Amino acid sequence: MNADPRRLAQALGHRFTREELLIQALTHRSVGSSNNERLEFLGDALIGFVIAEALWERFPKADEGTLSRMRASLVKRESLARLARDLKLGDSLRLGAGELRTGGHARDSILADALEAVLGAVYLDAGFERTRTVVLELFAARLEQTDAERAGKDPKTRLQEWLQSYKRPLPEYLVLSIDGDQHDQTFIVSCQLQDADVTTRGTGTSRRRAEQAAAESMLERIQHG
Amino acid sequence: MNADPRRLAQALGHRFTREELLIQALTHRSVGSSNNERLEFLGDALIGFVIAEALWERFPKADEGTLSRMRASLVKRESLARLARDLKLGDSLRLGAGELRTGGHARDSILADALEAVLGAVYLDAGFERTRTVVLELFAARLEQTDAERAGKDPKTRLQEWLQSYKRPLPEYLVLSIDGDQHDQTFIVSCQLQDADVTTRGTGTSRRRAEQAAAESMLERIQHG
Repeated sequence: MNADPRRLAQALGHRFTREELLIQALTHRSVGSSNNERLEFLGDALIGFVIAEALWERFPKADEGTLSRMRASLVKRESLARLARDLKLGDSLRLGAGELRTGGHARDSILADALEAVLGAVYLDAGFERTRTVVLELFAARLEQTDAERAGKDPKTRLQEWLQSYKRPLPEYLVLSIDGDQHDQTFIVSCQLQDADVTTRGTGTSRRRAEQAAAESMLERIQHG
Repeated sequence: MNADPRRLAQALGHRFTREELLIQALTHRSVGSSNNERLEFLGDALIGFVIAEALWERFPKADEGTLSRMRASLVKRESLARLARDLKLGDSLRLGAGELRTGGHARDSILADALEAVLGAVYLDAGFERTRTVVLELFAARLEQTDAERAGKDPKTRLQEWLQSYKRPLPEYLVLSIDGDQHDQTFIVSCQLQDADVTTRGTGTSRRRAEQAAAESMLERIQHG
């Protein structure tokens, strides 16, 4: 715990001139009255705008409702917490004793809020254009994924591309069971990541359909879980 | 109707390089598929961020919840429609025949959406820093008013300052009635604008209290009505 916050800044691709801003962004309210809540307010609005613009540009045919839904999915708590975990943000968090004891480092809400605060701090440190670049870099894989979903790519392809974007090995699909008559079969297939202890299952009337269902479930797990 | 949109741009203090962006921002969906809905999505997010930053800076002691409430009040539909009316934005709107007939030019939702779209268009035309200046200029009086409310100024003072910021004459207060015994009186006072046919009333146990109530009601009317 309490790793050097500069490591986090490096992972974000921004070197802070005013490091005290970064420290404040990593300080949960359980520590005291000087905490990250105001920076979170700023960062939340900032991310909302940068992602709105990115979606606006990427999807010239999407209507306002679609853009709003895509944005809501990208910036929701679970999505931000996932990004915070990728950055190992929890290691640099400053928590009060109570939160430390109860595992605050791993809590979605605390991670998501702190990530917003850190991006608010980047804005104060370096201005809009710089922060826009940092935010777009951070969300790059998720934005690609949004592209793929819009393009109607199937779940197995999307899962493969997602894993490749993080340079992770491809998943393994295994047929667990085949039930029923020749013309009315039910396949149960597992999808397993090779570099993590995560397995999902899918059911379908063909091996292919069951694999797609298992891949969809895996995408759901790794992107939103 | 359909005044030269350049007059609107001038009122906003921005000269468009790409005038077609402004035209699109003023085109309601009732006209056809090329309309202002996507620009509205962009502008809404932009305003949200610029106002968040302005409040963050102005109120260094305000907590996140207070900042959120202040922002919600500044950017809500009624507030944006009020700003749009000040700009005479309705005169430049492009509406379909149905909306024209039913008075769409004057509708809060249409005005607020179009103002968001116009600011989204300014952003695409001129970038963040420029648009930030335009938005802050547009909201200047409202931000001042937020200051005054936070500073605990009484309604009569706030009303006076608000009117002065628009170079409008001071309101007139008139005692309409005094009821009750010497030590248990009820005053009814009217507050009237001298340059508009708007009157509100206030009731109180003293003339001063009744005037404050009438001023509060007037503020409510002219700022949010």
